[in-house]
Amino acid sequence: MLLKKIKKENPLIHCMTNVVVTNFTANGLLALGASPVMAYAKEEVADLAGIAGGLLLNIGTLSTDEVEAMILAGKAANKNNVPVVLDPVGAGATSFRTEVCLDLLNRVDVTVLRGNAGEIASLVGVKATVKGVDGAIEGDTIELAKHAAKKFSCVTIVTGEMDVITDGHHVHTIYNGHPWLTKVVGTGCLLGAVVAAFVSVSKKDIKAACVDAVAYYGIASERAFAETNEEGIGSFQQAFLNHLNKMTDLDIKQLIRTKK
Amino acid sequence: MLLKKIKKENPLIHCMTNVVVTNFTANGLLALGASPVMAYAKEEVADLAGIAGGLLLNIGTLSTDEVEAMILAGKAANKNNVPVVLDPVGAGATSFRTEVCLDLLNRVDVTVLRGNAGEIASLVGVKATVKGVDGAIEGDTIELAKHAAKKFSCVTIVTGEMDVITDGHHVHTIYNGHPWLTKVVGTGCLLGAVVAAFVSVSKKDIKAACVDAVAYYGIASERAFAETNEEGIGSFQQAFLNHLNKMTDLDIKQLIRTKK
Amino acid sequence: MLLKKIKKENPLIHCMTNVVVTNFTANGLLALGASPVMAYAKEEVADLAGIAGGLLLNIGTLSTDEVEAMILAGKAANKNNVPVVLDPVGAGATSFRTEVCLDLLNRVDVTVLRGNAGEIASLVGVKATVKGVDGAIEGDTIELAKHAAKKFSCVTIVTGEMDVITDGHHVHTIYNGHPWLTKVVGTGCLLGAVVAAFVSVSKKDIKAACVDAVAYYGIASERAFAETNEEGIGSFQQAFLNHLNKMTDLDIKQLIRTKK
Repeated sequence: MLLKKIKKENPLIHCMTNVVVTNFTANGLLALGASPVMAYAKEEVADLAGIAGGLLLNIGTLSTDEVEAMILAGKAANKNNVPVVLDPVGAGATSFRTEVCLDLLNRVDVTVLRGNAGEIASLVGVKATVKGVDGAIEGDTIELAKHAAKKFSCVTIVTGEMDVITDGHHVHTIYNGHPWLTKVVGTGCLLGAVVAAFVSVSKKDIKAACVDAVAYYGIASERAFAETNEEGIGSFQQAFLNHLNKMTDLDIKQLIRTKK
Repeated sequence: MLLKKIKKENPLIHCMTNVVVTNFTANGLLALGASPVMAYAKEEVADLAGIAGGLLLNIGTLSTDEVEAMILAGKAANKNNVPVVLDPVGAGATSFRTEVCLDLLNRVDVTVLRGNAGEIASLVGVKATVKGVDGAIEGDTIELAKHAAKKFSCVTIVTGEMDVITDGHHVHTIYNGHPWLTKVVGTGCLLGAVVAAFVSVSKKDIKAACVDAVAYYGIASERAFAETNEEGIGSFQQAFLNHLNKMTDLDIKQLIRTKK
Repeated sequence: MLLKKIKKENPLIHCMTNVVVTNFTANGLLALGASPVMAYAKEEVADLAGIAGGLLLNIGTLSTDEVEAMILAGKAANKNNVPVVLDPVGAGATSFRTEVCLDLLNRVDVTVLRGNAGEIASLVGVKATVKGVDGAIEGDTIELAKHAAKKFSCVTIVTGEMDVITDGHHVHTIYNGHPWLTKVVGTGCLLGAVVAAFVSVSKKDIKAACVDAVAYYGIASERAFAETNEEGIGSFQQAFLNHLNKMTDLDIKQLIRTKK
């Protein structure tokens, strides 16, 4: 029933995200039924994060100034019981990114951490060989996710061909999704925002909200491909927005795939 | 005849706008026939604003640095008789935004102020209950628009289900448009840029140019929906760009709706 | 064979580009088969540029801070034999932009310079009358390109109705492309990124890589228009992404037009 709840309540999702995906993220949240607001100024981020339904911190094109504002926003969210989603884009690619993420995780109570396997591995300090464009690694993704969830005391989502959602103890796996999601920029980033929206209307069961969010997202991509198939990735991207908007809770219930 | 004039003269519209909508704004201006230029550096904004056909100031993702550059650009525009459109995105949502807008209105001669009812109400200091995603308020939008136009000595456009355009004395109402404009991010922001383009080729009758701009925009959205209907909001957004490009002055004349 | 090589190797293209076109650039690179990464922080740009397959410097919405980071990135690229493409967006429009470009050309070994005729003319100090939206000038574009290539010791691409590619001695002209490329924002900027990707897999023959990149790009636009024709520029933009993704080396070989 979470999709229905989002469409009814239009939760305000405060996104501090990278310049590559702002437009796509905002349109995706509108398609879902949430209300996006992007704001970065230190003078106002605490005000907005404090009244938001959810806060997204995405370090895709981070700067020192922006990180300082993220910490202000994160602390205000924590104080007001607003869930915080962290997307550690490119963690491991540079030591700057890894350090910033660890600093954020240290100073802000993050509710959900969402990344690909390579990013999450770099945060827990596991050496991992990244073997694909989606950041997949050789090794046990489920153990990796549990490790991160325990270390950072937050629900962790590791996305890939198999999506893993765990609080460190119980594990859910989702097999929805289409490979072309890796051919559209910002699909991982938008998922972080979508997770924030789902969690904002289901604070009592964060993990279940994450499962629904991830399945919803994957199913929409399957439908987009089924509809546009031969046309190409530009058409796929547009159809994906259409289906993010049209999906229902019943679709999620009927089409979620928890096994390979 | 303003559309024809824009397509002939390709007025340069200097946009200082938010990071969420820059691409959409630039593509919308190109569709209309104007020439967008985005520039934010203090070292050059006065040079560009001074030679532009119009200047758009949109505070959607403002920073202190950007506001300082906006004031430099605004003053250069004023000096060179370049019309200035202010879009007070999110005024009222944080006190920072409200204060920045009032400061801009104080230091720059704004030609046209465009916002939703909630934003404009916060600028004139009227307490208003916002009741919808489009920033609609309970209360008299026409009186609100007149109040703002008089207080800030500029043409004011309050957009919503009914669009109000006024110089504080004469009032025009427009009923074109489609509700899905609220499901595509940046449609309000792009309208501000479109207004700047229309005004740039019709400095002698600012108000009439605003009426044409608002009607043009609404009609394009009606056509986009008529064409794509069941497909969804991604398709609607693309068709909207197509129709922004294809519309003619005759379309505006024939399809403008000034009564409910 | 360069397209095939790009799709196999997925070269990492580090883009420091303007806020208007980041999303379009990243999606275009993904369509091509390259891996885009956008990063601007001084703390990390040298790390990323040093391991990238190519570096794009585009000054479309430059700031003093960003230019400093560009120089750090450019020097790291030079040190690691990573090709650097410079896109001098708006050079000549303000003296700030012209000076920044000349400074970049002075401090970084640029591999390829890509601009329209007006921009390149302003960099070599030639007075030119810009006569169209695509920055075309009155005068000899081939001589202009050769002049720039010699002056800055780099391959120079001057784009327009006729595209000119030269190392200062040998000249190639390409006549592919569609006028609607000027109606979609960022098509010039994306071409710079595409050139970086082609050059990254063909460092031994930079000029030939540029010829292929420019022809590839033009042919994709011709196909996009052929497919969507009457629909409009929004549809054209989407089809363009589809065809950037679908093109093959054989298409380039068969459809390249080197004469008017």
